[in-house]
Amino acid sequence: MGKKYNVAVVGATGVVGQEMLKVLEERKFPIEKIIPLASSRTAGTRVEFQDKEIVVQELKKDSFQDVQIALFSAGSEVSEKYAPIAAAAGAVVIDNTAYFRMDPDVPLVVPEINAREVRNRPKGIIANPNCSTAQMVVALKPIYDAVGIKRLVISTYQAVSGTGKEAIEELQQEVLDILQMKPVKPEVYPYQIAFNVLPHIDSFLDSGYSKEEMKMVNETQKIFGDDSIRITATTCRVPVFYCHSECVNIETKQKISAAEVRALLNKAENIIVADDPRKNIYPMPILAAGKNDTFVGRIREDISIDNGIELFIVSDNLRKGAAFNAVQIAEEVIKDF
Amino acid sequence: MGKKYNVAVVGATGVVGQEMLKVLEERKFPIEKIIPLASSRTAGTRVEFQDKEIVVQELKKDSFQDVQIALFSAGSEVSEKYAPIAAAAGAVVIDNTAYFRMDPDVPLVVPEINAREVRNRPKGIIANPNCSTAQMVVALKPIYDAVGIKRLVISTYQAVSGTGKEAIEELQQEVLDILQMKPVKPEVYPYQIAFNVLPHIDSFLDSGYSKEEMKMVNETQKIFGDDSIRITATTCRVPVFYCHSECVNIETKQKISAAEVRALLNKAENIIVADDPRKNIYPMPILAAGKNDTFVGRIREDISIDNGIELFIVSDNLRKGAAFNAVQIAEEVIKDF
Repeated sequence: MGKKYNVAVVGATGVVGQEMLKVLEERKFPIEKIIPLASSRTAGTRVEFQDKEIVVQELKKDSFQDVQIALFSAGSEVSEKYAPIAAAAGAVVIDNTAYFRMDPDVPLVVPEINAREVRNRPKGIIANPNCSTAQMVVALKPIYDAVGIKRLVISTYQAVSGTGKEAIEELQQEVLDILQMKPVKPEVYPYQIAFNVLPHIDSFLDSGYSKEEMKMVNETQKIFGDDSIRITATTCRVPVFYCHSECVNIETKQKISAAEVRALLNKAENIIVADDPRKNIYPMPILAAGKNDTFVGRIREDISIDNGIELFIVSDNLRKGAAFNAVQIAEEVIKDF
Repeated sequence: MGKKYNVAVVGATGVVGQEMLKVLEERKFPIEKIIPLASSRTAGTRVEFQDKEIVVQELKKDSFQDVQIALFSAGSEVSEKYAPIAAAAGAVVIDNTAYFRMDPDVPLVVPEINAREVRNRPKGIIANPNCSTAQMVVALKPIYDAVGIKRLVISTYQAVSGTGKEAIEELQQEVLDILQMKPVKPEVYPYQIAFNVLPHIDSFLDSGYSKEEMKMVNETQKIFGDDSIRITATTCRVPVFYCHSECVNIETKQKISAAEVRALLNKAENIIVADDPRKNIYPMPILAAGKNDTFVGRIREDISIDNGIELFIVSDNLRKGAAFNAVQIAEEVIKDF
C-alpha cells in the first residue's frame, strides 16, 4: 500500500477544518500533498500540518486539479457550489455540511454502520452526518443489531464549537463579562449562552421541531436504512466548549438487559463504556474532548416500559461528529483506489 | 384577616433560606415576627428582612416556642431531628428536604395540584417536593386533567444553586481558573462543572438510576395521587447558576394538539407560555431567574407516537422548586387558622 493521495481540505481555517488536518495527521493518512483551501477572507493565512506551515489557498473552480480526496466543511453554500466541481474534476468529495445528506444519490455514512455504502456514490459525493447523529448511531448500532429499535426519545446538550470559532470566542467573552458584572452582547446566538441553556439549534419548522432535531430523525433513519425507527428529539445548546452529550431513551423491539448492552458496547469499535456511576464513572465532555471514541454510560433498564434502555452518550462533536468520521470515510474510500 | 404569625426559617443563611425570606417579603406574608435559625456555624450572622437586619439564632430544641409556621431547608438530618420537635411545639412544619416526602403520613404538596392536602397532616409536617419535580408537575397538571398521562421521558439541565452556595462559588472559581489556564480543583462536585455536564445528581441506586431521578418518578406519582403514570428520567448538572431546564416527553392517554396544550397552559396559574420559537421565544434560565412562574415552550406534537407532546420547561429552582412553593403552602395553611 505505498500509494499516497492529494487531499484538499475546504474550510481549512475553521474549527472542523483544523480538526480534519489534525486527524489526518494522527491517523497517518497516506498523503502526498495536503491542499488547505478557504474563502478569500482567510486565504493566505497558514495552517500547521506534519510540523510544517502551509499557506491556505483561495478556493476556486480550478482548485481540485489532481486531487483524489476533498474534505468539505465550509458551509452548505460552499458545498452546493464547489462539491460538484470537485467531483467533476475527479475528486471523491466527503462533505460535512447538511446540503447533500438527504439526497438519494448521496450516501450518508458512519463507517461503523454502513461503510460499504461509500462505494455507491453516483455523484462522487459522500455525506458526513450531523454531529449529534453520528455519535448516537455508533452507540445504537450494537443494540439495533441485537434486538431492533422501535423508538428513540432524545435530548441533547450541545457544545458551542458546533457553531464555530466565533461561538467559542463568544462564550469565553460572555463568561468574563458576566463575572465582571459587565453587560453581555450576544452576536452569534440570539441570547447569552454563558450560564444559560438555549433550546434552539438551527432554524424552526412549522411542526415546532428545529432543523437540527429533524436531522437526528431523518439522518438516523437513512444511516440505518430503516424508516420504521420512530424518533423524537429536543436539541439544546449548553455552555460547553467541546463535546455533545445526549440522553437517549431507547424502546427496543425485544427485551435486552443493561448488562447485555454493556457487553455489546464493550466489544464495539470506537466506543468506550464509562459506566460505574457509584465510582463516579460516566461520560462527560471533559472526558471525551479531543478523542475519537464515543463514550457511553448511565446504561440502565428503563423502569417505565417493558423493553427500554437509557443511555448517556458523549463524544467530541469535532471528532466523531465531524473530522474523525470524515477521515474514516476517506480511509474506506482509498481501499478501492 | 388581620392575623399575623410567627414564622421560623430553618437554614436561613443558605441559598433556599435566603430565598424564603425574600418570597415571604414579596408575597406580603402576614408576619408578626420572623425567626431566622441556623446551625452554630452561621448563627450570629445577620439576614435582611423588610429592610431590617435580623440576627440569625442558633437552632435549638426550644427554638419553636410560639412559632406557628416553620419553614425547613437545612438538610435532611436537620429536618429528621428538628421537624418533629417544631411540630410537637405546635408549629406547622413545611419541609424542603427529601426526608419526609415519601412518608405516607406527610402530604407532598404543589398547591396548583393538591393544595387541599395540606389539611391532612397527622404529623404536623408538610413536604415540599424536589425542585425538578415541582416545576414539571405544575406544567403537566392541565394536560393530565384534559387527556391523562400514560408515560413521561424526562431529561434535566439543572443549575448549581440546587446544590447550594458552595457550588455557586465553585462554578465561578472554576470558570476563572480555566480562562486563566490554571488547574481546576473541584471540591463540591467530583469533577469540574465549568464547561462540563455531569449526569450525576445525588447518589446512585442498584437500578442505575440516581436518587434524584427516582424523586422525579416517585414524587410525581405521589403528588398526582396516581401510580399508573409511567416515568423515566435522566438528571444532569449543567454550568448554569440559577434555574432548572427540562425536556419532558409526554405520552398522553387521549390525543391532544399542541394548540390545545398551549391554550390550556395559557389559562393555568403561575405558568408563562414562552412559545414562538421562530421569533426566538422559548424558555431559558436567563428568562426565569428570580421569578415565581414556570416557563413552558417548544410545545409540539411528538412525531414518533400517536399521542405525544414535547415540552421544554424552565423555572427558578430556588423559587417554584423551593421557596415559592413552600410559601404557597404556608399561605394555604393559614387559611384555616
